[in-house]
Amino acid sequence: MSLLDATHDPALRSWVTSANTPDTDFPVQNLPFGRFRRKGEGQQDTLRVGVAIGDQVLDLRLAAELCPWSNEVAPLLDPLAAGDLAAFMRLGRPAWRAVRAALSAALTADSEQGPFLESCLVPQADVQMAMPCEIGDYTDFYTSIHHATTVGKMFRPDNPLLPNYTWVPIGYHGRSSSIGVSGQLLRRPMGQVKLIDAAEPVLRASSRLDYELELGALMAHGNELGSRIGMDKAEDHIFGLVLFNDWSARDIQPWEYQPLGPFLSKNFGSTVSPWVVTLDALAPFRQPFVRAEGQPQPLPYLDSAHNREAGAISIELEVWLQTQKMQKAQHPGDRLAGSNYASAAYWTLAQLVAHHTVNGCNLRTGDLLGTGTLSGPEPGQGGSMLELGHGGRQALTLSSGELRSFIEDGDTVILRGHCMAEGARRIGFGECRGTVLPALT
Amino acid sequence: MSLLDATHDPALRSWVTSANTPDTDFPVQNLPFGRFRRKGEGQQDTLRVGVAIGDQVLDLRLAAELCPWSNEVAPLLDPLAAGDLAAFMRLGRPAWRAVRAALSAALTADSEQGPFLESCLVPQADVQMAMPCEIGDYTDFYTSIHHATTVGKMFRPDNPLLPNYTWVPIGYHGRSSSIGVSGQLLRRPMGQVKLIDAAEPVLRASSRLDYELELGALMAHGNELGSRIGMDKAEDHIFGLVLFNDWSARDIQPWEYQPLGPFLSKNFGSTVSPWVVTLDALAPFRQPFVRAEGQPQPLPYLDSAHNREAGAISIELEVWLQTQKMQKAQHPGDRLAGSNYASAAYWTLAQLVAHHTVNGCNLRTGDLLGTGTLSGPEPGQGGSMLELGHGGRQALTLSSGELRSFIEDGDTVILRGHCMAEGARRIGFGECRGTVLPALT
Repeated sequence: MSLLDATHDPALRSWVTSANTPDTDFPVQNLPFGRFRRKGEGQQDTLRVGVAIGDQVLDLRLAAELCPWSNEVAPLLDPLAAGDLAAFMRLGRPAWRAVRAALSAALTADSEQGPFLESCLVPQADVQMAMPCEIGDYTDFYTSIHHATTVGKMFRPDNPLLPNYTWVPIGYHGRSSSIGVSGQLLRRPMGQVKLIDAAEPVLRASSRLDYELELGALMAHGNELGSRIGMDKAEDHIFGLVLFNDWSARDIQPWEYQPLGPFLSKNFGSTVSPWVVTLDALAPFRQPFVRAEGQPQPLPYLDSAHNREAGAISIELEVWLQTQKMQKAQHPGDRLAGSNYASAAYWTLAQLVAHHTVNGCNLRTGDLLGTGTLSGPEPGQGGSMLELGHGGRQALTLSSGELRSFIEDGDTVILRGHCMAEGARRIGFGECRGTVLPALT
Repeated sequence: MSLLDATHDPALRSWVTSANTPDTDFPVQNLPFGRFRRKGEGQQDTLRVGVAIGDQVLDLRLAAELCPWSNEVAPLLDPLAAGDLAAFMRLGRPAWRAVRAALSAALTADSEQGPFLESCLVPQADVQMAMPCEIGDYTDFYTSIHHATTVGKMFRPDNPLLPNYTWVPIGYHGRSSSIGVSGQLLRRPMGQVKLIDAAEPVLRASSRLDYELELGALMAHGNELGSRIGMDKAEDHIFGLVLFNDWSARDIQPWEYQPLGPFLSKNFGSTVSPWVVTLDALAPFRQPFVRAEGQPQPLPYLDSAHNREAGAISIELEVWLQTQKMQKAQHPGDRLAGSNYASAAYWTLAQLVAHHTVNGCNLRTGDLLGTGTLSGPEPGQGGSMLELGHGGRQALTLSSGELRSFIEDGDTVILRGHCMAEGARRIGFGECRGTVLPALT
């Protein structure tokens, strides 16, 4: 099956007029899925599944009920109508494509279904987004060779990149329970910090709080324990991507992380964007995956023709910072950095899945695979304050006149992402926002 | 409330005669909880909750229905009757104690409830045990200073124990999806291995497969993200303990683990024993927690009077190995090693909980905290083959004449644990068994 289908026709316009503006993240070519509550609904109400279209959400519980659908599509909408995005993810790519094509047709200008769907729209401003599904296990990788090299230099100036890096998609298990959705309020973590000159560590609030600019892949369905997912099937197991902020406490991390890896420096919170952009929507932005001169070719279990031809995805990523002072002045914040997923990542999504399961480890629906900090090769493309501020040695001056070496209380970090390509409509990821609250001391 | 109550009277005998033999793991003083299926029940049937008593299981679905209970206890049995052990765990210690006291009285010789409960017993040989609950996040600690020192010596002869060890309860996040219950069949993992003399790594089946002798603590209820659990409340959040085998591939581990910790060398499978021994049942085996001469006192957030007085628990642990050859000869296996939890662990359970949440990380019902490999200070007390076989340099000769440096295909590893103390009945943990299948190459 071709990567592209009719849903990618850049000429398609929607009867939802806000979906037709050139800068919207959510034209009819995107149709990302998310879960939400309507105003007035509480924790006791079942979450609803919707797709984002322009500045609206199409409520799929209502859409399944009020609009006529083909006999093929109607049963596929059942889990979505029930608010169970995970159950829909389990149905697999043919089902996702059928629903995507049906929603695309129904939302396209002059669709006969338009009049039925008008009452199923709710403004995005009027909904509260939730986690797209329950996360089972969360794994974070380390796919940006630029991030690994820059951070490695800080710890090991003579030997920045460890010898395994170019062979192994390095990853580790993170904390599922503390993953929240955009809008998350995070307490600054307390932790053991050992200053270089001190004889003993102390417990104190982190003073080197940082974000990490990442993407997260949501697993649609997994594999049985003891089996593995090969490169040729790996992408079929991924439902889509979200923006992902892997908050990090840089002063807790160096003292605790040997020999078993980061723990309390990471697990106090991570934030995802609410809209899952499907791999199908990302098809026009595929790129060849190539190894630079001098880098080893991947071992056969991490290699495939499809991966070489189209394993990478061009996604422009940005980090914005809005301080409390800016917020009070209704200033949208400063853009701190930007990078591109295709040039940042040394390993593709398919390689992460194939590596994760090569030992028989079982993935499950709703598992989240983080890419790791997606820093680009150039200055200004660092995906963390650690990189932009050279480990705290060089504070950034913001447009408000404020200085930042790390994240301060009241700061809001905003991740954004979008895709552009010749002959395709721009599509975007929306926002992943998180705000830091003072520590509880 | 005192640690001990009437359920610990060592003179108590049960009308279930097999519970009165001196070597049973499950006298009426123990009453561990587990989930099971009866013979003939399949995956589609709701799991049942039971307590182990002698060589029987008391089926709590039947017991709630067929036996009269006090007005206080009857509603507390509802989640147990429904097969939802996690919901019971969420009720908290007063509820657990009330149910424990009621079950103890009903199972004690001459109880008037005995005749009602006789038909609620099913032989352990006739049930299939399941996971006690769904594991949310699984964290593995590294609490044995003896294990950390011995393993550290293999990697860093001059500097075996890293400087953070005596201050930080070192831990990392492990894989929840691949945790299975005793009886688990595990495929030998494939993985990238880089031999010392080789220029490049290769993908191959692990040839240094190992077990790790651990205990696991099941969290009863957690904390909100951003809050923390102090030392004084920490034990109230723990429902009980299981035996835990953290299978490890020693040839995959050294190549992959820098800088983010173990990943594919661990996440192909871990095994728990099915019966959760409550902290209440372990009360008679409490011991003072003391730091040896020269070791720093814990930071205040890891210290409490109760912890100093009774933070440790004396549990005798053993590892047995049964090869295929032994199995065919109906030989029960060789005892490879033994250690005691109290002398192996440098950090107590309460300290693990307090440390895990000091940064605001949220624990949830069903989370599993592994202690890490519980090696003792003496030779023969190593909790892994890596230690017993000196990193593969000194094979063990088994009673069958077979040699073992690591675990071979067809081998079954069996963990056992029990507690003994003056004036208390012996209680045990049952078994945690796992068998290794050949790799899928």
